[in-house]
Amino acid sequence: MKSTRTVQKILANYEGTTPGVKANLNRILMTGKLGGTGKVIILPVDQGFEHGPARSFAPNPPAYDPHYHYQLAIDAGLNAYAAPLGMLEAGADTFAGQIPTILKVNSANSLIPKEAPKTQAITACVDDALRLGCAAIGFTVYPGSSAALDMFSDIAAMREEAEAKGLATVIWSYPRGEALDKDGETAADIASYAAQIAALLGAHVIKVKLSTDHLSLPEAKKVYESEKIDLSTQAARVADVMRSAFNGRRIVVFSGGSKKGTDSVYDDARAIRDGGGNGSIIGRNTFQRERGDALEMLGKLVEIYKGKA
Amino acid sequence: MKSTRTVQKILANYEGTTPGVKANLNRILMTGKLGGTGKVIILPVDQGFEHGPARSFAPNPPAYDPHYHYQLAIDAGLNAYAAPLGMLEAGADTFAGQIPTILKVNSANSLIPKEAPKTQAITACVDDALRLGCAAIGFTVYPGSSAALDMFSDIAAMREEAEAKGLATVIWSYPRGEALDKDGETAADIASYAAQIAALLGAHVIKVKLSTDHLSLPEAKKVYESEKIDLSTQAARVADVMRSAFNGRRIVVFSGGSKKGTDSVYDDARAIRDGGGNGSIIGRNTFQRERGDALEMLGKLVEIYKGKA
Amino acid sequence: MKSTRTVQKILANYEGTTPGVKANLNRILMTGKLGGTGKVIILPVDQGFEHGPARSFAPNPPAYDPHYHYQLAIDAGLNAYAAPLGMLEAGADTFAGQIPTILKVNSANSLIPKEAPKTQAITACVDDALRLGCAAIGFTVYPGSSAALDMFSDIAAMREEAEAKGLATVIWSYPRGEALDKDGETAADIASYAAQIAALLGAHVIKVKLSTDHLSLPEAKKVYESEKIDLSTQAARVADVMRSAFNGRRIVVFSGGSKKGTDSVYDDARAIRDGGGNGSIIGRNTFQRERGDALEMLGKLVEIYKGKA
Amino acid sequence: MKSTRTVQKILANYEGTTPGVKANLNRILMTGKLGGTGKVIILPVDQGFEHGPARSFAPNPPAYDPHYHYQLAIDAGLNAYAAPLGMLEAGADTFAGQIPTILKVNSANSLIPKEAPKTQAITACVDDALRLGCAAIGFTVYPGSSAALDMFSDIAAMREEAEAKGLATVIWSYPRGEALDKDGETAADIASYAAQIAALLGAHVIKVKLSTDHLSLPEAKKVYESEKIDLSTQAARVADVMRSAFNGRRIVVFSGGSKKGTDSVYDDARAIRDGGGNGSIIGRNTFQRERGDALEMLGKLVEIYKGKA
Amino acid sequence: MKSTRTVQKILANYEGTTPGVKANLNRILMTGKLGGTGKVIILPVDQGFEHGPARSFAPNPPAYDPHYHYQLAIDAGLNAYAAPLGMLEAGADTFAGQIPTILKVNSANSLIPKEAPKTQAITACVDDALRLGCAAIGFTVYPGSSAALDMFSDIAAMREEAEAKGLATVIWSYPRGEALDKDGETAADIASYAAQIAALLGAHVIKVKLSTDHLSLPEAKKVYESEKIDLSTQAARVADVMRSAFNGRRIVVFSGGSKKGTDSVYDDARAIRDGGGNGSIIGRNTFQRERGDALEMLGKLVEIYKGKA
Repeated sequence: MKSTRTVQKILANYEGTTPGVKANLNRILMTGKLGGTGKVIILPVDQGFEHGPARSFAPNPPAYDPHYHYQLAIDAGLNAYAAPLGMLEAGADTFAGQIPTILKVNSANSLIPKEAPKTQAITACVDDALRLGCAAIGFTVYPGSSAALDMFSDIAAMREEAEAKGLATVIWSYPRGEALDKDGETAADIASYAAQIAALLGAHVIKVKLSTDHLSLPEAKKVYESEKIDLSTQAARVADVMRSAFNGRRIVVFSGGSKKGTDSVYDDARAIRDGGGNGSIIGRNTFQRERGDALEMLGKLVEIYKGKA
Repeated sequence: MKSTRTVQKILANYEGTTPGVKANLNRILMTGKLGGTGKVIILPVDQGFEHGPARSFAPNPPAYDPHYHYQLAIDAGLNAYAAPLGMLEAGADTFAGQIPTILKVNSANSLIPKEAPKTQAITACVDDALRLGCAAIGFTVYPGSSAALDMFSDIAAMREEAEAKGLATVIWSYPRGEALDKDGETAADIASYAAQIAALLGAHVIKVKLSTDHLSLPEAKKVYESEKIDLSTQAARVADVMRSAFNGRRIVVFSGGSKKGTDSVYDDARAIRDGGGNGSIIGRNTFQRERGDALEMLGKLVEIYKGKA
Repeated sequence: MKSTRTVQKILANYEGTTPGVKANLNRILMTGKLGGTGKVIILPVDQGFEHGPARSFAPNPPAYDPHYHYQLAIDAGLNAYAAPLGMLEAGADTFAGQIPTILKVNSANSLIPKEAPKTQAITACVDDALRLGCAAIGFTVYPGSSAALDMFSDIAAMREEAEAKGLATVIWSYPRGEALDKDGETAADIASYAAQIAALLGAHVIKVKLSTDHLSLPEAKKVYESEKIDLSTQAARVADVMRSAFNGRRIVVFSGGSKKGTDSVYDDARAIRDGGGNGSIIGRNTFQRERGDALEMLGKLVEIYKGKA
Repeated sequence: MKSTRTVQKILANYEGTTPGVKANLNRILMTGKLGGTGKVIILPVDQGFEHGPARSFAPNPPAYDPHYHYQLAIDAGLNAYAAPLGMLEAGADTFAGQIPTILKVNSANSLIPKEAPKTQAITACVDDALRLGCAAIGFTVYPGSSAALDMFSDIAAMREEAEAKGLATVIWSYPRGEALDKDGETAADIASYAAQIAALLGAHVIKVKLSTDHLSLPEAKKVYESEKIDLSTQAARVADVMRSAFNGRRIVVFSGGSKKGTDSVYDDARAIRDGGGNGSIIGRNTFQRERGDALEMLGKLVEIYKGKA
Repeated sequence: MKSTRTVQKILANYEGTTPGVKANLNRILMTGKLGGTGKVIILPVDQGFEHGPARSFAPNPPAYDPHYHYQLAIDAGLNAYAAPLGMLEAGADTFAGQIPTILKVNSANSLIPKEAPKTQAITACVDDALRLGCAAIGFTVYPGSSAALDMFSDIAAMREEAEAKGLATVIWSYPRGEALDKDGETAADIASYAAQIAALLGAHVIKVKLSTDHLSLPEAKKVYESEKIDLSTQAARVADVMRSAFNGRRIVVFSGGSKKGTDSVYDDARAIRDGGGNGSIIGRNTFQRERGDALEMLGKLVEIYKGKA
């Protein structure tokens, strides 16, 4: 698989890692309609675990079938498809080699008692990802939870194993837990902090949420204000996240949250692009739409990331 | 062991797994009176652990002897026999090769203090299953318990080892614990969610309970109602479970609960069949009946699954 | 070492295990004055850990010396001697090969704060048992404790290792803990349940306490009464335990508790014999008596198990 | 790499360790402007994890880039650069071999709920340090925390692995937690105790904070007073720490805390030098200054440690 | 290294262990001025960890240097020197082979919050002891603590590894924790119980504290009184401990506690000798005295153990 100069420049930021990891990052970056541009769109389908099957798939029933998502990601020309073990296994032979896959190795669900510490179960291992031909493992951490340190240690161990075995590591860094109120979970300073933590943990690809202009930590607020850091637009906040991801040396993709209007989705993508982000990881907004609509929307996103829309 | 076209079609859904797992699934699907039809009836005898020996076996004293259950499953022409380590060991030589066996690798009991988190002990390992010539391991998870994430991680590790060693994995997905009230444990949305979790965890065969038309999670209820999903009959609810098991790509068997009248057992089986389920896993309703009655009832169930009753 | 037909019949019940385990069970069953009869008397000396040295040995000071117990078991013609690591090590060379030994691999003590969950520490490992030439490992579980599931998982792992290395597993199944009141610990239904749990965990030899005619679990009580199961005599209760030990397919020995009069000890043994039990595991009632008295009492017990007294 | 007599004398104190550890200590001691003097200045950049990116880097934005710190440490002629995994990886190829690096293998952050025990997550392993060509691993312990014993056990295991693999171990010994009030964290007796604990844990390089003349533990206070130990100056307190570090047989570096005026930084260094300490580990006071200022300040520190300022 | 008949007789009590363990016990028993007599004096220096450096070493400042203790033990002709990892490492080359060393592998400290369960951190491993040429590992257990069972399991695993690798195991058995009041910690019945636990855990050398004539456990008190066991003198209490250490089959050394007058130290030693104990393990009473005084005192202790004073 060849590599454009843009992609090679991105890969050059991944120092100190194994050639296997670089080869798999190259696979992701060179695949699909955005292949070679340094921009990426990833389809993640772990909502069946997190929200249950009806909430996830009933709005668009063909999505109950794991093959649907593989096919959607391939037909839309995306860079990669991420899902938990069962979902990937269910199409691993049929679609082998047609799109880079990311094995989500930990998962939460909606049936956990509310009082329990916010955490996830490890539901697959690095050797599963090798067996299934994946390009990367994906792992969620919850900075702000009383269980966060355990999650950091778990991903540190899996990242090390994945790295040695040539797989890239994608970290979903989602602020959540006892140390944060609702506004804090989406605050601008927290989003940048979450990106920094993922980068320090050795993530090759970082997934964070788009943020609001709220500032949550008093000590951080003081600095943002004294240093006059602009957070007034979504693009400015994306830029602050990118600075926090080793000054742009790490690939960062942004998630859009629950299903919403296409204009809103397009605005998000333009902000990500303008702020220097690498792209979108977009789940419910694709597979909960009828397939034709989803493909049209994803086509438009590709255009946006190419700077043509 | 040969394989019918129907069974081959089912096996084709098991992508990304080892040939050993497929061979063992084939063993289960091609054995007994339903062999080759894609339908299965499994005899599980783990009630001695869960309810104690008197409640389990005193109503039909020959059932105290582990040989009794092997013989019953063989004589009734069932597809497989599932039990904890001690039960399987006690007949492993006598009945070697006569019926596929499933080693139940975790177990609970009635002597646990009520306040303890709902969970089970791991009471056997994958190498035990290999030594005993089993076709699969069986593992219970309790979605809804504060211990559920630990159970998910445990089965993930055992599933991976079993897969590498060529054994199939059966997951008993039983909603239970602090996050659920009594109605929730048997609610239709929860049963489908339980099936989805098992499928995502990589189960090759999923065991869930038949459900009521109650809906437990408010967010799920909203979707079921807005999407007008029919849950009015048992067959419709079985169909919803099958959709949640990767749109029918996974074998799902349903359990019937405590002993009841034969008509009720037959009605359950017809609903499972009509909803597209793969069959029954039926314990107390067999071994707590006198052997002649049990064989007659199981014979009738075979006819039902063959569409002849 | 040869084997009588009676013993061979017992060994035939141990299906699915390794030849090493069978050879060690044969060693135990063919040793001593009861060798070949299928009956067994075992000397257990773990009270130094559980009750401290003074309570255990001061009444008969020679018993402070570990050699004393080896010699007593040998001179009395018992089948085996069970003790924690230190006790066995202290005579392992002197008495090597003279009597089968059972390494007690977990232990509790009287200095544990009352509020702590009832459990034991693992104080030796399978490789210790191999090094010391033991025939079996011994492990206590406390059904009824909040720590019971952890104990089950621990013995499951050690049983598997022992089995692979050719050592038998003896489980002390002692109901205790938050789920049981004082009467419950010695109730008839609980004793049978305890035997069943040990059998399901893969115990080759099961040790339970003699019980009273009290019934503890309401659901079990209902069945015992509706099925009219006789529990009126100690022999009847022993018979119920044997049924619960795979209908007699597992060796079960009964313990007698604290020191008492010899007539009472003899009555217990007759009840065990008449109920179909395999024998006695008798500690304080032997080593807290003066050696001559102990030998006389043990001689009488042998006669009882031979049906001559 | 050659070694001065001064350095050889220091290395001679490292008895009982592997040649690999000594070689790596030599690398650190012979590098930079203080190379060969036995004095060291280390640049640590783990504040992104502990305080977040804005608080750490916004005051001097080029510091968002991991390359900035490598270059600063090299240009200033420091002995070593210490950082968490992601930071080191991001420049590991570009700066390979240009400066000894210390992989910080555990990390905390500001998003931990206040009530949680004070501890850190293990975020990298010894093999990561080998892969990245590091000279040492760095580990923080919190004497005074309810989690301190677990931290001690964790570093003991990593130290042993590092030692066997030829890497040195640096311990950040920071008193913190439930057993200490705010004054206690920086008390003179506690600082010396912290140094002693690190030394006993096998640290090759110890990092502690400069202390006040407060005495926290009543029993220690009694001894300091009765033995008339001088703690009135910072240099005297440094000397007490050095005594507690095996009478000077271990390298001890002192940290200066949050950003402050250069005069204050210089006074600290003179006290460290005069008390017999080995040097400074100085983070925020360098990288939060503009690069030119930082280089000037570090140049002055070198002069101080050389006894020329 | 040769062995006297007295020592050979002691070694003969160590049945069932490896030749490596016996060889190391022989090293300890044949070293120093008491070499060959079966009596031992051991210098333990772990107070830096437990009480901090000032309380431990300020009264005699040369003791801050690890070399001091090696030299003191050698010059006084003691049998062995015991210390945590850092202390031993700091002189391991200089004093290699000059005196048997015992690596203390777990440690507590005074900075633990009062409410935490009484336990210690594992701070070194068996392979550290091998690397440092030690004769034994040392491990503290706290019978009476809610963490005692975990400590027992930890030492059981380390003892097994040490035994296989030819190192002896010394257990410090110190009653402490929630199950004991202040008087209970030094009660005579508890001291004997502590010795018994250590012996059962497989200790080759047992360290307990001298006790008072208080009896703590009501059930034990009853037996001591009914059996009329003499506990009126320190020698009688030592004799009771020796009985509880397998009737004298295990080496037991007694510790003297905090610094006190020499007459009191001598009286303790005479009581240990007269009660049949093997010797003293004496830390603060040696290294907190000026070197000359300490040597004189240790010389006198040697005389006492030789029966000459």
